[in-house]
Amino acid sequence: MTAVVAELPNAAAVRRRVTTVLDDFLERKTRTATQLRMPAEVTQCLRDFLAVGGKRLRPLLCVTGWQAAGGHGTPQALIRTAASLEMFHTFCLIHDDIMDSSNSRRGTPTVHRRLAHHHRHGRSAPAAERVGTSGAILIGDLALAWSDELLHTAGLTPRQLRVVLPLIDDMRSEVMYGQYLDVTAAARPTADVEQAMRIVRYKTAKYTVERPLHIGAALAGAPLVVREALSAYALPVGEAFQLRDDLLGVFGTPELTGKPSLDDLREGKRTMLVTLALQRADARQRRVLHSLLGIPSLEEAGAERIREVLIASGARDEVEGMINALGAQALRVLETSPFSPGATDHLRQLTDALLARAS
Amino acid sequence: MTAVVAELPNAAAVRRRVTTVLDDFLERKTRTATQLRMPAEVTQCLRDFLAVGGKRLRPLLCVTGWQAAGGHGTPQALIRTAASLEMFHTFCLIHDDIMDSSNSRRGTPTVHRRLAHHHRHGRSAPAAERVGTSGAILIGDLALAWSDELLHTAGLTPRQLRVVLPLIDDMRSEVMYGQYLDVTAAARPTADVEQAMRIVRYKTAKYTVERPLHIGAALAGAPLVVREALSAYALPVGEAFQLRDDLLGVFGTPELTGKPSLDDLREGKRTMLVTLALQRADARQRRVLHSLLGIPSLEEAGAERIREVLIASGARDEVEGMINALGAQALRVLETSPFSPGATDHLRQLTDALLARAS
Repeated sequence: MTAVVAELPNAAAVRRRVTTVLDDFLERKTRTATQLRMPAEVTQCLRDFLAVGGKRLRPLLCVTGWQAAGGHGTPQALIRTAASLEMFHTFCLIHDDIMDSSNSRRGTPTVHRRLAHHHRHGRSAPAAERVGTSGAILIGDLALAWSDELLHTAGLTPRQLRVVLPLIDDMRSEVMYGQYLDVTAAARPTADVEQAMRIVRYKTAKYTVERPLHIGAALAGAPLVVREALSAYALPVGEAFQLRDDLLGVFGTPELTGKPSLDDLREGKRTMLVTLALQRADARQRRVLHSLLGIPSLEEAGAERIREVLIASGARDEVEGMINALGAQALRVLETSPFSPGATDHLRQLTDALLARAS
Repeated sequence: MTAVVAELPNAAAVRRRVTTVLDDFLERKTRTATQLRMPAEVTQCLRDFLAVGGKRLRPLLCVTGWQAAGGHGTPQALIRTAASLEMFHTFCLIHDDIMDSSNSRRGTPTVHRRLAHHHRHGRSAPAAERVGTSGAILIGDLALAWSDELLHTAGLTPRQLRVVLPLIDDMRSEVMYGQYLDVTAAARPTADVEQAMRIVRYKTAKYTVERPLHIGAALAGAPLVVREALSAYALPVGEAFQLRDDLLGVFGTPELTGKPSLDDLREGKRTMLVTLALQRADARQRRVLHSLLGIPSLEEAGAERIREVLIASGARDEVEGMINALGAQALRVLETSPFSPGATDHLRQLTDALLARAS
C-alpha cells in the first residue's frame, strides 16, 4: 500500500489530515465517555484500529474526485467528508470481521477477538466469545453512527449536503447489499459467475472506488458528464482491485497483507477465483474443492491442495487475465476523460498502484 | 400496549401515519432491490418486523414533545422524523436480539432465526446459524442507515436540522453505550447497583423517553427550560418503564409480552431486579442465583427457583417500590411544568399506561 500513498500527489498530506480529523474526533468522544463513566475501551478500540494502518484509500479517492471535477485546493470540509468515509469503512471492517470469524486484521487481533480476550476474566470461553462479538457489533454500530456525525458536522454548504447525502445513502445500501450477497453465497455448492461479479461490483467497485470519487466530485459541483466518466473509470478499476484482493487472500504473503491466507478458504467465500475454479474443475478437482472449502478447521496442507486446483483449473490465470483487461479498460477511459489533466495523471498512477499491489 | 395507544389523544392517527411512512419507504426500497437484482428477503424482513407490532412508543413521544413545546398540528416532517426513530429502533432490536441470542420477538421468530431457517438448505446447521446471524447484522445495519435517510429526507428546515441532529447523535451514542454496558455486565458475579442504574438510564430512560421528547420539542423550537422540564419528567418515567420491563421479562406472561420469560435469565442479564437480589440474598439464595443465572440451557423448573429467590430476597418488592416512587416523581414534575395543558394531560395518561402495562 505504501505504493499507492507514495504515487498519489499530496497523498501523504491528505492521509495525515484525515488521520488528524479522526484522532481529534475520537479524542473528544473519549473525553465524553469518561465524563459519562462509560468504558474507555470503546473509543480505544477504534483509535487503535485506525492507528495500526489502513490505506485511507476512500478518503484519497474522495479528494481525487474533487480534483477531477476541478475543485481547488483541499478545504477542510472536503477532508472531514473524506474522514467520514474512513470511519464508515471502519464500521464495515469491524462487522465484516465478525461475519467472517476473522482472528486478525492489519496484523493485529480483530476487535471481536480483542474484546473476547479483554472480557475473559470470570467468564467461560464461550461466554467471553459472545461478549466479544456483541461488543464488536456495538463498536461497529457506533462507528457507523459517528461516520454520520462526522459528515453532518463537516461544514458542508446546504447545496453540497443536498448532492452528497443521496450518494452516501446509495453507497451504504450498495456495500451492505454486496456484503449480504457475499455472506449468503458463502459455502454454496454452485458456481454462479454472474452472482460472483455482482458481489465484486457492489461490495468493492462501487463502494471503494466509484462512490468516493462521486462524492468528492459532487462536492466540487461536478456535472453529470464528469460523474459518468468517473463511473466508467471506477467500475473496471474497482472490480480489478477486488479480483487482486481475492488472489492475495489465497496466494498472498500474510506478512504483507496483514491477514492470514486461510480465512477466505475456511469461510468458503465464493470469490470469482473460486467460482471460476468450480466451473472449470474436472471431477477430481471439484471433489477437492467441495471437500475442503468452507471447513473452519482447514490447515495449510489442505489450503495447498485447494491452491493447486485453483492453479491447475486455470482459474488463477483467468482472474489475472480479467485484472489486466479491466485495468486496460479503465486506462482507456482516462484517455478521453473530461477530468483535469492533473487528476487524470493521479488516476493513471493510482490504477497501476492498485492493480499491482502486494498487500 | 393497546392501553398506551388508546389513552394518548391522536395516538392511533399518529401510529397509522408513521406506519404509512415506513411502508412507503420500504416499498420503494423493495423496488430498488428488485431492479438491482438484490435479495427481496432484506426488505421483507424489515416490513414483517414492523408489521407484526411494536408500540411506536418513540414516535408517539416525539409527537408529544412537539405538542409539549407548543407545536401546532402534526406536520408531515414531524411524522417522518418520528418514523425515522422507529426505523432506528428496529435496528436496535434486531442487533439486540442477536446479542441476546433471542429466538422470538413480538411472538414471531427473530430476524437471525428466520434467516438461519431461510438459508438452511444445502448447509450444516452451524453454517446456517452463521449465515442467519451475519444476515441479521446486515439488515440491522441497513435499518440504521435507512433511519438516517428517513431523517434527512424528512423535509425539515435547515434550522430544525441544526437543532435535531446533535440530539440524534447523542441518542444513538447513549443507547449504544447503554447496550454495551449491558452486554459486558452480563454474567458477572458482582452486584453493582450503580452500574445497573446506569444501564437503565442510558439504554432506556434517555433513549426511549427523554430523547424522543427532546427531538419533538426541538422541532417546535423549544427553549431550554422546556427541554429541561422534559428531562426531569422523562428520566424517572423512563427508568420506571425499564424496571417494569425487567419484572415482565421474568414474571410476565409470554403470550402478552411476545417474548419468552426465560431469555433474560438464560442470558444472565444484570437487571436492577437481579442486582438487588444478588445484594440482598443470603448464602443459600446466592448459591441458587450463581448456579442458575446465565445458563443457556436453563428450563422452567430452574427459572422458578430463581423467581422464588427474587421474591423471597425482597428484590421484587423493592423494584415495585422504585417504580412507584419514580412514577410519583414524574407526575410531580408535571404539576409545575411549562408544557401546554393538553400535553401535560397526555404525559400524565402516558405515565399511567407505561408503568402499569402488562406487555
